[in-house]
Amino acid sequence: MTAHLIDSLATTDALAAVFSDSFLLQSMLDFEAALARVEARLGVIPSRAADAISAAAVADGLDAAAIARAARESGTPAIALVQALVARVHAADPESARFVHWGATSQDVVDTAFILALGRAHQILAADHARLTGSLRQLSDRYAGTIMLGRTLLQAAPPVTFGLKLAGWFAALKRGWRRVHDAFGESEVLQFGGAVGTLAALGPNGVPVHRGLAEELGLKAEPSWHTHRDRFAVVITNCGLYTGGLGKIARDLSLLMQDEVGELVEKGGGSSSMPHKRNPVASAIALAAETRMPGLVAAFLTGMVQEHERAVGGWHAEWPTLSAAIQCTGAALAALADVVDDDVLTVDTDRMRANIEETHGVIFAERAMMLLVPSLGKEVASQLVTDAVQHTRATGQPFAAVLGSMPEIARVIPQAELQNIDDPEAYLGAAEALRVQMLA
Amino acid sequence: MTAHLIDSLATTDALAAVFSDSFLLQSMLDFEAALARVEARLGVIPSRAADAISAAAVADGLDAAAIARAARESGTPAIALVQALVARVHAADPESARFVHWGATSQDVVDTAFILALGRAHQILAADHARLTGSLRQLSDRYAGTIMLGRTLLQAAPPVTFGLKLAGWFAALKRGWRRVHDAFGESEVLQFGGAVGTLAALGPNGVPVHRGLAEELGLKAEPSWHTHRDRFAVVITNCGLYTGGLGKIARDLSLLMQDEVGELVEKGGGSSSMPHKRNPVASAIALAAETRMPGLVAAFLTGMVQEHERAVGGWHAEWPTLSAAIQCTGAALAALADVVDDDVLTVDTDRMRANIEETHGVIFAERAMMLLVPSLGKEVASQLVTDAVQHTRATGQPFAAVLGSMPEIARVIPQAELQNIDDPEAYLGAAEALRVQMLA
Amino acid sequence: MTAHLIDSLATTDALAAVFSDSFLLQSMLDFEAALARVEARLGVIPSRAADAISAAAVADGLDAAAIARAARESGTPAIALVQALVARVHAADPESARFVHWGATSQDVVDTAFILALGRAHQILAADHARLTGSLRQLSDRYAGTIMLGRTLLQAAPPVTFGLKLAGWFAALKRGWRRVHDAFGESEVLQFGGAVGTLAALGPNGVPVHRGLAEELGLKAEPSWHTHRDRFAVVITNCGLYTGGLGKIARDLSLLMQDEVGELVEKGGGSSSMPHKRNPVASAIALAAETRMPGLVAAFLTGMVQEHERAVGGWHAEWPTLSAAIQCTGAALAALADVVDDDVLTVDTDRMRANIEETHGVIFAERAMMLLVPSLGKEVASQLVTDAVQHTRATGQPFAAVLGSMPEIARVIPQAELQNIDDPEAYLGAAEALRVQMLA
Amino acid sequence: MTAHLIDSLATTDALAAVFSDSFLLQSMLDFEAALARVEARLGVIPSRAADAISAAAVADGLDAAAIARAARESGTPAIALVQALVARVHAADPESARFVHWGATSQDVVDTAFILALGRAHQILAADHARLTGSLRQLSDRYAGTIMLGRTLLQAAPPVTFGLKLAGWFAALKRGWRRVHDAFGESEVLQFGGAVGTLAALGPNGVPVHRGLAEELGLKAEPSWHTHRDRFAVVITNCGLYTGGLGKIARDLSLLMQDEVGELVEKGGGSSSMPHKRNPVASAIALAAETRMPGLVAAFLTGMVQEHERAVGGWHAEWPTLSAAIQCTGAALAALADVVDDDVLTVDTDRMRANIEETHGVIFAERAMMLLVPSLGKEVASQLVTDAVQHTRATGQPFAAVLGSMPEIARVIPQAELQNIDDPEAYLGAAEALRVQMLA
Repeated sequence: MTAHLIDSLATTDALAAVFSDSFLLQSMLDFEAALARVEARLGVIPSRAADAISAAAVADGLDAAAIARAARESGTPAIALVQALVARVHAADPESARFVHWGATSQDVVDTAFILALGRAHQILAADHARLTGSLRQLSDRYAGTIMLGRTLLQAAPPVTFGLKLAGWFAALKRGWRRVHDAFGESEVLQFGGAVGTLAALGPNGVPVHRGLAEELGLKAEPSWHTHRDRFAVVITNCGLYTGGLGKIARDLSLLMQDEVGELVEKGGGSSSMPHKRNPVASAIALAAETRMPGLVAAFLTGMVQEHERAVGGWHAEWPTLSAAIQCTGAALAALADVVDDDVLTVDTDRMRANIEETHGVIFAERAMMLLVPSLGKEVASQLVTDAVQHTRATGQPFAAVLGSMPEIARVIPQAELQNIDDPEAYLGAAEALRVQMLA
Repeated sequence: MTAHLIDSLATTDALAAVFSDSFLLQSMLDFEAALARVEARLGVIPSRAADAISAAAVADGLDAAAIARAARESGTPAIALVQALVARVHAADPESARFVHWGATSQDVVDTAFILALGRAHQILAADHARLTGSLRQLSDRYAGTIMLGRTLLQAAPPVTFGLKLAGWFAALKRGWRRVHDAFGESEVLQFGGAVGTLAALGPNGVPVHRGLAEELGLKAEPSWHTHRDRFAVVITNCGLYTGGLGKIARDLSLLMQDEVGELVEKGGGSSSMPHKRNPVASAIALAAETRMPGLVAAFLTGMVQEHERAVGGWHAEWPTLSAAIQCTGAALAALADVVDDDVLTVDTDRMRANIEETHGVIFAERAMMLLVPSLGKEVASQLVTDAVQHTRATGQPFAAVLGSMPEIARVIPQAELQNIDDPEAYLGAAEALRVQMLA
Repeated sequence: MTAHLIDSLATTDALAAVFSDSFLLQSMLDFEAALARVEARLGVIPSRAADAISAAAVADGLDAAAIARAARESGTPAIALVQALVARVHAADPESARFVHWGATSQDVVDTAFILALGRAHQILAADHARLTGSLRQLSDRYAGTIMLGRTLLQAAPPVTFGLKLAGWFAALKRGWRRVHDAFGESEVLQFGGAVGTLAALGPNGVPVHRGLAEELGLKAEPSWHTHRDRFAVVITNCGLYTGGLGKIARDLSLLMQDEVGELVEKGGGSSSMPHKRNPVASAIALAAETRMPGLVAAFLTGMVQEHERAVGGWHAEWPTLSAAIQCTGAALAALADVVDDDVLTVDTDRMRANIEETHGVIFAERAMMLLVPSLGKEVASQLVTDAVQHTRATGQPFAAVLGSMPEIARVIPQAELQNIDDPEAYLGAAEALRVQMLA
Repeated sequence: MTAHLIDSLATTDALAAVFSDSFLLQSMLDFEAALARVEARLGVIPSRAADAISAAAVADGLDAAAIARAARESGTPAIALVQALVARVHAADPESARFVHWGATSQDVVDTAFILALGRAHQILAADHARLTGSLRQLSDRYAGTIMLGRTLLQAAPPVTFGLKLAGWFAALKRGWRRVHDAFGESEVLQFGGAVGTLAALGPNGVPVHRGLAEELGLKAEPSWHTHRDRFAVVITNCGLYTGGLGKIARDLSLLMQDEVGELVEKGGGSSSMPHKRNPVASAIALAAETRMPGLVAAFLTGMVQEHERAVGGWHAEWPTLSAAIQCTGAALAALADVVDDDVLTVDTDRMRANIEETHGVIFAERAMMLLVPSLGKEVASQLVTDAVQHTRATGQPFAAVLGSMPEIARVIPQAELQNIDDPEAYLGAAEALRVQMLA
């Protein structure tokens, strides 16, 4: 089991598996096995040792809880893991056990194992990102001409199209994902430096082993970056940005799902006491993730102050922080991808239209201003429009009609234009052109 | 198993157990059982139902993973948990199943279960706090007269006593714990309000059930606080403050453990590659916790903006955040309590003295100033003292001797006082009085 | 001028004044003058020096920008401030200049000046808190019987009263303020310890000067707490909690102000392009504050790890962080106090009622469940109620009527009760009792 | 004056100027003037109006404090700024006043003005970055062969070179700056969308004005991104990462400046009470910045959840947060660039060597292990080396000699190698090759 109750809304099964004991243990063992193979190939250790180590490097059967507990004594799970591996190899071939972890240091194992986990997480996120943005593009095209209220500071404003709103969500996620993707790419760098980053324990073999190990693990070979953690930091900050984009979508979704707005319904979740509820559960999961992410990003940035060649604390804070952040991101992404889907999301285009009509046209006050100001000046125009808005609000009479009944206004705006002033289709500006540009 | 590899440095076994699936499930079930008992006692539901519900309310055998997965569909683990309980009760007594969760809402169960977990965590932290502050007091008394360098901005400064430093640590933790303790006290309030906090589903029985349930669970009865989360927030912020105090101790410890300083040794942890290392593992754990806590606190505060009568997201972010924070705090506390202990901590009082001597007395420049300024004025005195400091630094000659050799100085400061100027015992001011006050 | 454009929404004039150059300079000078007076009284320095120092300790005419610039060279504004004061005193009476800052260290001045500023900020916040909670209480009483939708996860839920919602806001702020108030009280402690906290420079006079200075400044006398910053931290964390309460109010306000909800109008702000807008400006200011506060709190907590007897960095991060946080809090508080006021806030009680009616009664699904389950069991009842909800949604027929038309239901619920099932007044539970309790 | 006391360590004069009232007002006016010019060119407004508006668009003489105060009423400084501009233009040419701000909305002005400020900040940071990394490269070359202790978890470890450490700092900043630079590039996008982002007020002129305005201001033209704030967020997160790199340097610097280590001296700052102090002031400023940055980043990310077409709060939180973050970054950068400079930094290479010698060779325990394990196995080797380390520590006898005196060891390691085992030059591994690679 990978999902725990306390984190149930904060991960997905797939991502929980990536940061599970077994995946992390196996990643550490993969490092050790690859190191042995490369060292054997270069003649640094006997081939037989590499074989024995590779054979023993299987997470199954290791006591993860014991290793976790030992980590609290030594400050890292690597020492107990290496001991367990040594014991296993020793049981099969005592001589070979000498060459386990040859020339490496704890941080080499721990960091590289984490990088391997990040690589897997990258794939999982990528699939859900493709799913969500695919749906957004499809929905944006479908609702390209569907008019809805624009809303600024949660107040009714001139109209937009639902397609434009969806394209805005799409474009932000697309920009965000490019950054996330690049950041994961930046993190695909082997950590291998030995005790202090000089590879001194391997003598002249240091550089070749370093290069070979990177290749063996499919990672880039760059000088050890022990206490320079920007390659991890750039992953978490960009997940933070991306989740910001998801959170914005979720906020909009949940606002549009309000009964009083009624323009959208996520699939909806139930309630233990109220059978009528259609709760925005995906939005809640995404907003919960976005609530947590900034603090997780902050924690990671704080930990970047790492002393000399290995930190006291900053390094030790990374695993829980970065793993929680990636699971947060993935939980939000999967939740939204599940509901922002043409087959799942209910879009009430009538209600969208009706909500515009409910304003009786006052949202076109700006339009009236644009027509009046050139002739009347800002002050006079603003006073007249404000009067008209108030009259509409008091009486429910259409704004266009009220304007038409005001002689100072009728004098300035041609009657045809006046009658048309509250036609939302006629006040969409460049919405469609911008939408197309956003999807490009 | 409660400790996971990814969190191995970020919790303790005892605290991991508190936030485990089984503890949380049992706490939720304890709520349901207590509710049924109270409702039966008040005649709201049949006694038989209460008996059946109580009997069934045992976490053992429930499928926590399934409940966690279901939580992602409905936004809360409560619904699936209640269903599981209903099924169990139904199997034993179908009629009784009708009265499971009677008049309650998901948030009532989830929040109250968490409060019960907090109560348990409170006890665990209290024990470790008592252990650590007990040791600090004992060590402070023992090293009351042990002189060491004061250090400001990491530069050598006039002397303090190790006892005073320990007393400062003690006093900060004592103040911090009082706040943590009070905060846990503030959180011991039943959450019970039904769908929107009015207890409407229970009609006239609402208030009596509320009062009875609080009593049954040993919690305070206060009006439902659904979307006012300050009672949880005050726990996490005060854990944050307290961990700040722990982090300060850990920073000091790790600095004093540097080979170049050499005044302290924690028990020390090993290294996978360097047998000579005595790593400050407890400090690393505590500093890792302190690295993470501010972000966790920030996340919780962000989530306090909870909409109307139940939030979208803010509420859903709380469990992982608050549980991580309390485990962080406890991990730091336990790690320090394990090493800041008279039997474990190695204190090198000779090295403390030697480090003072290494400064050749320049740390008493302030003292010289106090003696010279009244006669010579600040400018002249400062110039003379700076010259003396530079001479000492260049030659290694004792500062007192250098001062004595400067006629402008010898003219002003009596010879006896001059010879004595670098006696640390004579320049401790009120250190002991303040130490005693701090321990009071 | 105290308010700057970049911070215009993030402070008030009164609070900007507290953290202005002139206030801070004067506070530092007040410390120096008080120190001199106390030392003269105790015979530590000449009376004449105290007179000269007191006379010179006036911020007017000091070059704050030069002191700010000098601070970047020495790491603290205190050194340049002391030099400026020395120069002034020297001009009037050269001998007296020797006794400026006698026995103190930079941190003594800087911290104590900040504490004096906090004391003034406390008063300003207290006045606005009293104003806001006074209004909340008054409004809660006035709208005690005004029924509105409860809303959970932004979905319509059983009714509450507006009075209850206001009382919930009130109670949270009241709890929050008690904590803020106590925290400011905890911060009213003199910082005075000399170079390393031992008061050594003052020899036997250390303790009496310490005690006298505390009294002179109206602060508590406690042992120097140089690197233990919890007394400041508790102020910022509790401001964070309190602002969380303000943010919750602002979120609710802005949601209730949506045109589609239309239950409230803040006084409203305009728009540069849309004359019809009534923007929730106070809510925006409060939510902006709440957006920033968690990060400011996190920054302060991070800075608590302060090395030995004076920190490198942690201490230096405090002024901008704590001052921004208090101004944030005050800006949010003043903005809400300005609009949550019986004379300013527009409450549309008809719209509140209408929004309930718009649900056609489905929000009483829970009530129907409570009536049906005892006879029919959860499963059957839930199916029937769900059918009724769907029928109501599809047809707009009242939920009560739909239920009444379903024979399985009519059989179980007495007709009188059925007709009454969507009467919100009859489903308020303990709302009024709880409201009264919250205001107590 | 641009630097304020409260922020004196948190900015530079140059950056304070960028976020000053006058710069921001002028940037807003530059937007308005450019808009008018472009609209005149396209025939949207009269040329005469553009001339009058351009002529009036000068910040000098505007009442910034009044605009700041008005911002609190309307939620934005733009409205009062536009009114002030209208009044000025009106005084010169009433007709032209009608065309001020034509077709724009407040957010267009405010965001674009901020983007212009960011552009200026970018230049300032770039210059200091070049200065600092130039010095780091020069120093790294100079100290390429200077051997110093590696230190892991603040414990002595095998040697590195000072050149390698400097190259590590360099490489991290170089990676960090590329990201910062790219992020500023991403932010150079015009904000122009009118009320809701559709440019509707300008009708068919919307797109051409948008394109022309971008060109006029030297910004990219992309569809309005009102509530998608990732282009700002990527600036602050990458400043956060970069400051993390600066903080790491500052931590290392301040640790190396400890009297007990004594390997470096920043220029040093004084103390108000202790003339002997050489405080790490630049490190303190940089670490203060790094203490604050994570919280500022978190605040910005939190604010990314922006509602619909303009946010309530999230948007309003940006100015103080982003401006503080950039000033923080710049303050840290300038402070370090001032001291990490071949003419300023004092490097004590003798002390570096001496600190290695002080360990009596135990830091070469790893080396001994590498030599012993192949013959003896891990367990035996580890026991022997641990014995040797303890003997060295107890007696002060050189580690090499102790090893040589142990027959089990002498049997395995050739005498020549044994004598050489504590030669740091012989245990640098690939340090120089890696250093060169880092500087590439």
